[in-house]
Amino acid sequence: MDVSEAIRTKHAVRSFEDKPLPEEVVRTILNAGRLAQSAKNMQPWQFVAIQDKKALNAFSKHGHHATHIAGAALAVAILTFPPERRFSILFDAGQAAAYMQLAAWELGVGSCLATIYQPDKAREQLGFPDEWHIHIAISFGYPTVGKPQPRPSPRKGRMSFDEVVHWEKW
Amino acid sequence: MDVSEAIRTKHAVRSFEDKPLPEEVVRTILNAGRLAQSAKNMQPWQFVAIQDKKALNAFSKHGHHATHIAGAALAVAILTFPPERRFSILFDAGQAAAYMQLAAWELGVGSCLATIYQPDKAREQLGFPDEWHIHIAISFGYPTVGKPQPRPSPRKGRMSFDEVVHWEKW
Repeated sequence: MDVSEAIRTKHAVRSFEDKPLPEEVVRTILNAGRLAQSAKNMQPWQFVAIQDKKALNAFSKHGHHATHIAGAALAVAILTFPPERRFSILFDAGQAAAYMQLAAWELGVGSCLATIYQPDKAREQLGFPDEWHIHIAISFGYPTVGKPQPRPSPRKGRMSFDEVVHWEKW
Repeated sequence: MDVSEAIRTKHAVRSFEDKPLPEEVVRTILNAGRLAQSAKNMQPWQFVAIQDKKALNAFSKHGHHATHIAGAALAVAILTFPPERRFSILFDAGQAAAYMQLAAWELGVGSCLATIYQPDKAREQLGFPDEWHIHIAISFGYPTVGKPQPRPSPRKGRMSFDEVVHWEKW
Protein backbone atom coordinates (compact mmCIF):
# COMPACT_ATOMS: atom_id res chain seq x y z
CA MET A 1 0.00 0.00 0.00
CA ASP A 2 1.54 3.30 -0.98
CA VAL A 3 1.81 6.19 1.43
CA SER A 4 -0.84 8.33 -0.23
CA GLU A 5 -3.36 5.50 -0.18
CA ALA A 6 -2.65 4.78 3.48
CA ILE A 7 -3.11 8.45 4.38
CA ARG A 8 -6.26 8.75 2.29
CA THR A 9 -7.97 5.57 3.51
CA LYS A 10 -6.90 5.23 7.13
CA HIS A 11 -9.64 5.76 9.68
CA ALA A 12 -10.01 4.99 13.36
CA VAL A 13 -10.92 1.38 14.12
CA ARG A 14 -12.44 0.70 17.53
CA SER A 15 -13.97 -2.72 17.01
CA PHE A 16 -11.62 -5.64 16.49
CA GLU A 17 -11.86 -9.29 15.55
CA ASP A 18 -10.98 -11.66 18.38
CA LYS A 19 -7.82 -12.75 16.60
CA PRO A 20 -4.21 -12.28 17.64
CA LEU A 21 -1.69 -10.44 15.49
CA PRO A 22 1.24 -12.48 14.15
CA GLU A 23 4.44 -11.71 16.00
CA GLU A 24 6.00 -10.26 12.86
CA VAL A 25 3.13 -7.79 12.52
CA VAL A 26 3.49 -6.72 16.14
CA ARG A 27 7.21 -6.20 15.66
CA THR A 28 6.70 -4.26 12.41
CA ILE A 29 4.31 -1.88 14.15
CA LEU A 30 6.63 -1.30 17.10
CA ASN A 31 9.63 -0.96 14.83
CA ALA A 32 7.90 1.77 12.82
CA GLY A 33 7.56 3.81 15.99
CA ARG A 34 11.18 3.15 16.86
CA LEU A 35 12.29 4.53 13.49
CA ALA A 36 10.49 7.87 13.84
CA GLN A 37 12.59 10.99 14.00
CA SER A 38 12.74 13.22 17.06
CA ALA A 39 14.22 16.56 18.05
CA LYS A 40 17.98 16.18 18.45
CA ASN A 41 17.33 12.47 17.90
CA MET A 42 16.43 12.25 21.60
CA GLN A 43 13.99 9.40 21.00
CA PRO A 44 12.08 10.52 24.09
CA TRP A 45 9.94 7.38 24.26
CA GLN A 46 9.55 3.81 25.40
CA PHE A 47 6.81 1.49 24.20
CA VAL A 48 5.05 -1.12 26.31
CA ALA A 49 3.33 -3.75 24.15
CA ILE A 50 0.37 -5.40 25.87
CA GLN A 51 -1.21 -8.50 24.36
CA ASP A 52 -2.44 -10.44 27.39
CA LYS A 53 -6.25 -10.34 27.40
CA LYS A 54 -6.59 -9.66 31.11
CA ALA A 55 -3.96 -6.97 30.95
CA LEU A 56 -5.70 -5.33 27.97
CA ASN A 57 -8.98 -5.36 29.85
CA ALA A 58 -7.41 -3.82 32.93
CA PHE A 59 -5.58 -1.24 30.86
CA SER A 60 -8.74 -0.16 29.07
CA LYS A 61 -10.07 1.16 32.38
CA HIS A 62 -7.37 3.84 32.66
CA GLY A 63 -8.98 6.11 30.07
CA HIS A 64 -12.40 7.40 29.06
CA HIS A 65 -13.64 6.04 25.75
CA ALA A 66 -10.81 3.50 25.97
CA THR A 67 -12.97 0.39 25.98
CA HIS A 68 -11.69 -0.38 22.47
CA ILE A 69 -8.43 -1.43 24.16
CA ALA A 70 -10.23 -4.29 25.92
CA GLY A 71 -11.11 -5.84 22.57
CA ALA A 72 -7.80 -5.17 20.87
CA ALA A 73 -5.13 -7.72 20.03
CA LEU A 74 -2.40 -5.31 21.04
CA ALA A 75 -2.11 -2.06 22.92
CA VAL A 76 1.01 0.05 22.79
CA ALA A 77 1.47 2.36 25.74
CA ILE A 78 3.62 5.29 24.68
CA LEU A 79 5.80 6.44 27.56
CA THR A 80 7.66 9.72 27.17
CA PHE A 81 10.11 11.99 28.89
CA PRO A 82 8.33 14.59 31.06
CA PRO A 83 6.32 16.56 28.49
CA GLU A 84 6.91 19.89 30.22
CA ARG A 85 10.64 19.55 29.63
CA ARG A 86 10.40 20.46 25.94
CA PHE A 87 7.49 21.13 23.58
CA SER A 88 8.94 18.62 21.15
CA ILE A 89 8.41 15.57 23.38
CA LEU A 90 4.71 15.15 22.70
CA PHE A 91 5.15 16.36 19.12
CA ASP A 92 7.70 13.60 18.61
CA ALA A 93 5.45 11.05 20.30
CA GLY A 94 2.78 12.04 17.79
CA GLN A 95 5.16 11.32 14.94
CA ALA A 96 5.99 7.89 16.36
CA ALA A 97 2.29 7.12 16.81
CA ALA A 98 1.55 8.12 13.21
CA TYR A 99 4.32 5.82 11.98
CA MET A 100 2.96 2.88 13.98
CA GLN A 101 -0.61 3.43 12.83
CA LEU A 102 0.29 3.82 9.16
CA ALA A 103 2.56 0.76 9.26
CA ALA A 104 -0.29 -1.21 10.84
CA TRP A 105 -2.84 0.01 8.29
CA GLU A 106 -0.66 -1.20 5.45
CA LEU A 107 -0.83 -4.68 7.01
CA GLY A 108 -4.61 -4.59 7.33
CA VAL A 109 -4.47 -3.75 11.02
CA GLY A 110 -6.74 -1.04 12.38
CA SER A 111 -5.96 1.11 15.38
CA CYS A 112 -7.26 3.83 17.62
CA LEU A 113 -5.70 6.29 20.01
CA ALA A 114 -6.79 6.38 23.64
CA THR A 115 -6.07 9.15 26.09
CA ILE A 116 -4.97 7.76 29.44
CA TYR A 117 -6.76 9.84 32.03
CA GLN A 118 -5.52 7.82 34.98
CA PRO A 119 -1.78 7.77 34.47
CA ASP A 120 -1.09 6.63 38.04
CA LYS A 121 -3.12 3.50 37.52
CA ALA A 122 -1.42 2.87 34.21
CA ARG A 123 1.93 3.28 35.95
CA GLU A 124 0.89 0.86 38.67
CA GLN A 125 -0.15 -1.75 36.12
CA LEU A 126 2.88 -1.43 33.89
CA GLY A 127 5.43 -0.69 36.59
CA PHE A 128 7.35 2.04 34.80
CA PRO A 129 9.58 4.43 36.77
CA ASP A 130 8.77 8.00 37.81
CA GLU A 131 10.83 9.65 35.09
CA TRP A 132 8.53 8.23 32.41
CA HIS A 133 5.08 9.62 31.70
CA ILE A 134 2.02 8.37 29.88
CA HIS A 135 -0.66 10.31 28.04
CA ILE A 136 -1.54 8.04 25.16
CA ALA A 137 -1.93 4.42 24.17
CA ILE A 138 -2.89 2.89 20.85
CA SER A 139 -5.08 -0.18 20.35
CA PHE A 140 -4.41 -2.43 17.35
CA GLY A 141 -6.25 -5.36 15.81
CA TYR A 142 -7.99 -6.67 12.73
CA PRO A 143 -11.11 -4.59 12.07
CA THR A 144 -14.40 -6.39 12.54
CA VAL A 145 -15.99 -7.23 9.22
CA GLY A 146 -19.62 -6.69 8.39
CA LYS A 147 -20.63 -4.29 11.11
CA PRO A 148 -20.11 -0.56 11.03
CA GLN A 149 -17.29 0.85 13.08
CA PRO A 150 -18.37 3.06 15.96
CA ARG A 151 -17.40 6.66 15.29
CA PRO A 152 -17.79 8.66 18.49
CA SER A 153 -16.03 11.72 17.15
CA PRO A 154 -18.22 14.77 17.74
CA ARG A 155 -17.15 16.33 14.44
CA LYS A 156 -17.10 14.33 11.27
CA GLY A 157 -14.64 14.71 8.47
CA ARG A 158 -11.93 17.27 8.03
CA MET A 159 -11.87 20.96 7.31
CA SER A 160 -11.53 21.76 3.63
CA PHE A 161 -8.14 22.48 2.10
CA ASP A 162 -8.89 26.20 1.95
CA GLU A 163 -9.93 26.29 5.59
CA VAL A 164 -6.55 24.92 6.66
CA VAL A 165 -4.00 26.28 4.20
CA HIS A 166 -2.72 29.85 3.85
CA TRP A 167 -0.39 30.95 1.08
CA GLU A 168 2.68 32.96 2.12
CA LYS A 169 0.81 34.75 4.92
CA TRP A 170 -2.23 34.34 7.15
CA MET B 1 6.37 3.68 -2.46
CA ASP B 2 4.80 1.54 0.24
CA VAL B 3 4.51 2.72 3.81
CA SER B 4 7.17 0.41 5.20
CA GLU B 5 9.71 1.52 2.61
CA ALA B 6 8.96 5.18 3.30
CA ILE B 7 9.39 4.68 7.04
CA ARG B 8 12.57 2.64 6.57
CA THR B 9 14.28 4.94 4.08
CA LYS B 10 13.19 8.43 5.09
CA HIS B 11 15.88 10.63 6.53
CA ALA B 12 16.22 14.32 7.19
CA VAL B 13 17.15 16.38 4.11
CA ARG B 14 18.62 19.80 4.76
CA SER B 15 20.19 20.58 1.40
CA PHE B 16 17.87 21.15 -1.53
CA GLU B 17 18.12 21.64 -5.28
CA ASP B 18 17.24 25.14 -6.44
CA LYS B 19 14.12 23.86 -8.12
CA PRO B 20 10.49 24.63 -7.33
CA LEU B 21 7.98 21.93 -6.46
CA PRO B 22 5.08 21.42 -8.88
CA GLU B 23 1.86 22.83 -7.51
CA GLU B 24 0.32 19.38 -7.31
CA VAL B 25 3.18 18.15 -5.13
CA VAL B 26 2.77 21.12 -2.81
CA ARG B 27 -0.95 20.46 -2.53
CA THR B 28 -0.42 16.74 -1.91
CA ILE B 29 1.94 17.48 0.96
CA LEU B 30 -0.41 19.99 2.58
CA ASN B 31 -3.39 17.75 2.03
CA ALA B 32 -1.65 14.88 3.83
CA GLY B 33 -1.36 17.09 6.91
CA ARG B 34 -4.97 18.12 6.59
CA LEU B 35 -6.08 14.47 6.61
CA ALA B 36 -4.30 13.57 9.86
CA GLN B 37 -6.43 12.56 12.81
CA SER B 38 -6.61 14.58 15.99
CA ALA B 39 -8.13 14.26 19.45
CA LYS B 40 -11.89 14.76 19.22
CA ASN B 41 -11.21 15.62 15.57
CA MET B 42 -10.33 19.15 16.73
CA GLN B 43 -7.86 19.65 13.88
CA PRO B 44 -5.99 22.12 16.08
CA TRP B 45 -3.84 23.43 13.24
CA GLN B 46 -3.44 25.82 10.36
CA PHE B 47 -0.67 25.57 7.78
CA VAL B 48 1.08 28.50 6.14
CA ALA B 49 2.83 27.49 2.93
CA ILE B 50 5.79 29.69 2.04
CA GLN B 51 7.41 29.46 -1.38
CA ASP B 52 8.61 32.99 -2.05
CA LYS B 53 12.43 32.98 -1.93
CA LYS B 54 12.73 36.19 0.07
CA ALA B 55 10.08 35.03 2.51
CA LEU B 56 11.84 31.68 2.94
CA ASN B 57 15.10 33.46 3.62
CA ALA B 58 13.48 35.75 6.18
CA PHE B 59 11.66 32.85 7.80
CA SER B 60 14.85 30.81 8.18
CA LYS B 61 16.12 33.41 10.63
CA HIS B 62 13.42 32.67 13.21
CA GLY B 63 15.05 29.44 14.36
CA HIS B 64 18.47 28.06 15.23
CA HIS B 65 19.73 25.49 12.75
CA ALA B 66 16.91 26.60 10.45
CA THR B 67 19.08 27.76 7.57
CA HIS B 68 17.83 24.78 5.55
CA ILE B 69 14.58 26.72 5.18
CA ALA B 70 16.36 29.41 3.18
CA GLY B 71 17.31 26.88 0.53
CA ALA B 72 14.00 25.04 0.50
CA ALA B 73 11.36 25.17 -2.21
CA LEU B 74 8.61 25.20 0.38
CA ALA B 75 8.29 25.76 4.09
CA VAL B 76 5.15 24.83 5.97
CA ALA B 77 4.65 26.73 9.20
CA ILE B 78 2.49 24.64 11.53
CA LEU B 79 0.28 26.89 13.63
CA THR B 80 -1.60 25.30 16.52
CA PHE B 81 -4.08 26.05 19.25
CA PRO B 82 -2.32 27.13 22.47
CA PRO B 83 -0.31 24.01 23.37
CA GLU B 84 -0.95 24.40 27.09
CA ARG B 85 -4.67 23.95 26.54
CA ARG B 86 -4.39 20.20 26.02
CA PHE B 87 -1.48 17.77 25.80
CA SER B 88 -2.88 16.43 22.56
CA ILE B 89 -2.36 19.61 20.56
CA LEU B 90 1.35 19.16 19.95
CA PHE B 91 0.94 15.38 19.76
CA ASP B 92 -1.58 15.91 16.97
CA ALA B 93 0.67 18.44 15.24
CA GLY B 94 3.35 15.75 15.26
CA GLN B 95 1.00 13.34 13.52
CA ALA B 96 0.18 15.93 10.85
CA ALA B 97 3.88 16.65 10.34
CA ALA B 98 4.65 12.95 9.94
CA TYR B 99 1.91 12.62 7.33
CA MET B 100 3.27 15.59 5.36
CA GLN B 101 6.84 14.35 5.47
CA LEU B 102 5.98 10.78 4.47
CA ALA B 103 3.72 11.99 1.64
CA ALA B 104 6.56 14.20 0.43
CA TRP B 105 9.13 11.41 0.63
CA GLU B 106 6.99 9.18 -1.56
CA LEU B 107 7.16 11.92 -4.21
CA GLY B 108 10.95 12.21 -3.98
CA VAL B 109 10.77 15.34 -1.85
CA GLY B 110 13.00 15.61 1.19
CA SER B 111 12.18 17.59 4.29
CA CYS B 112 13.45 18.70 7.66
CA LEU B 113 11.84 20.00 10.82
CA ALA B 114 12.91 23.34 12.24
CA THR B 115 12.14 24.60 15.71
CA ILE B 116 11.02 28.21 15.64
CA TYR B 117 12.78 29.87 18.55
CA GLN B 118 11.52 33.35 17.73
CA PRO B 119 7.78 32.87 17.47
CA ASP B 120 7.07 36.60 17.72
CA LYS B 121 9.13 37.29 14.63
CA ALA B 122 7.45 34.43 12.81
CA ARG B 123 4.09 35.87 13.83
CA GLU B 124 5.13 39.29 12.57
CA GLN B 125 6.20 37.90 9.21
CA LEU B 126 3.17 35.68 8.66
CA GLY B 127 0.61 37.91 10.32
CA PHE B 128 -1.31 35.23 12.20
CA PRO B 129 -3.58 36.16 15.12
CA ASP B 130 -2.80 35.83 18.82
CA GLU B 131 -4.83 32.67 19.35
CA TRP B 132 -2.51 30.71 17.06
CA HIS B 133 0.95 29.56 18.11
CA ILE B 134 4.03 28.36 16.31
CA HIS B 135 6.71 25.96 17.46
CA ILE B 136 7.62 24.10 14.30
CA ALA B 137 8.05 24.54 10.58
CA ILE B 138 9.04 22.01 7.93
CA SER B 139 11.26 22.69 4.93
CA PHE B 140 10.63 20.73 1.72
CA GLY B 141 12.51 20.38 -1.55
CA TYR B 142 14.28 18.02 -3.90
CA PRO B 143 17.39 16.66 -2.18
CA THR B 144 20.68 17.78 -3.65
CA VAL B 145 22.30 15.03 -5.65
CA GLY B 146 25.95 14.07 -5.40
CA LYS B 147 26.90 15.74 -2.19
CA PRO B 148 26.39 14.30 1.26
CA GLN B 149 23.53 15.67 3.31
CA PRO B 150 24.58 17.55 6.42
CA ARG B 151 23.58 15.59 9.52
CA PRO B 152 23.94 17.81 12.55
CA SER B 153 22.17 15.42 14.90
CA PRO B 154 24.33 14.86 17.97
CA ARG B 155 23.27 11.21 18.18
CA LYS B 156 23.27 9.01 15.15
CA GLY B 157 20.83 6.24 14.48
CA ARG B 158 18.10 4.85 16.66
CA MET B 159 18.06 2.83 19.83
CA SER B 160 17.74 -0.89 19.21
CA PHE B 161 14.35 -2.59 19.31
CA ASP B 162 15.06 -4.10 22.71
CA GLU B 163 16.08 -0.74 24.14
CA VAL B 164 12.69 0.74 23.24
CA VAL B 165 10.16 -2.07 23.58
CA HIS B 166 8.87 -3.71 26.75
CA TRP B 167 6.54 -6.73 26.73
CA GLU B 168 3.46 -6.51 28.96
CA LYS B 169 5.29 -4.55 31.67
CA TRP B 170 8.31 -2.31 32.15
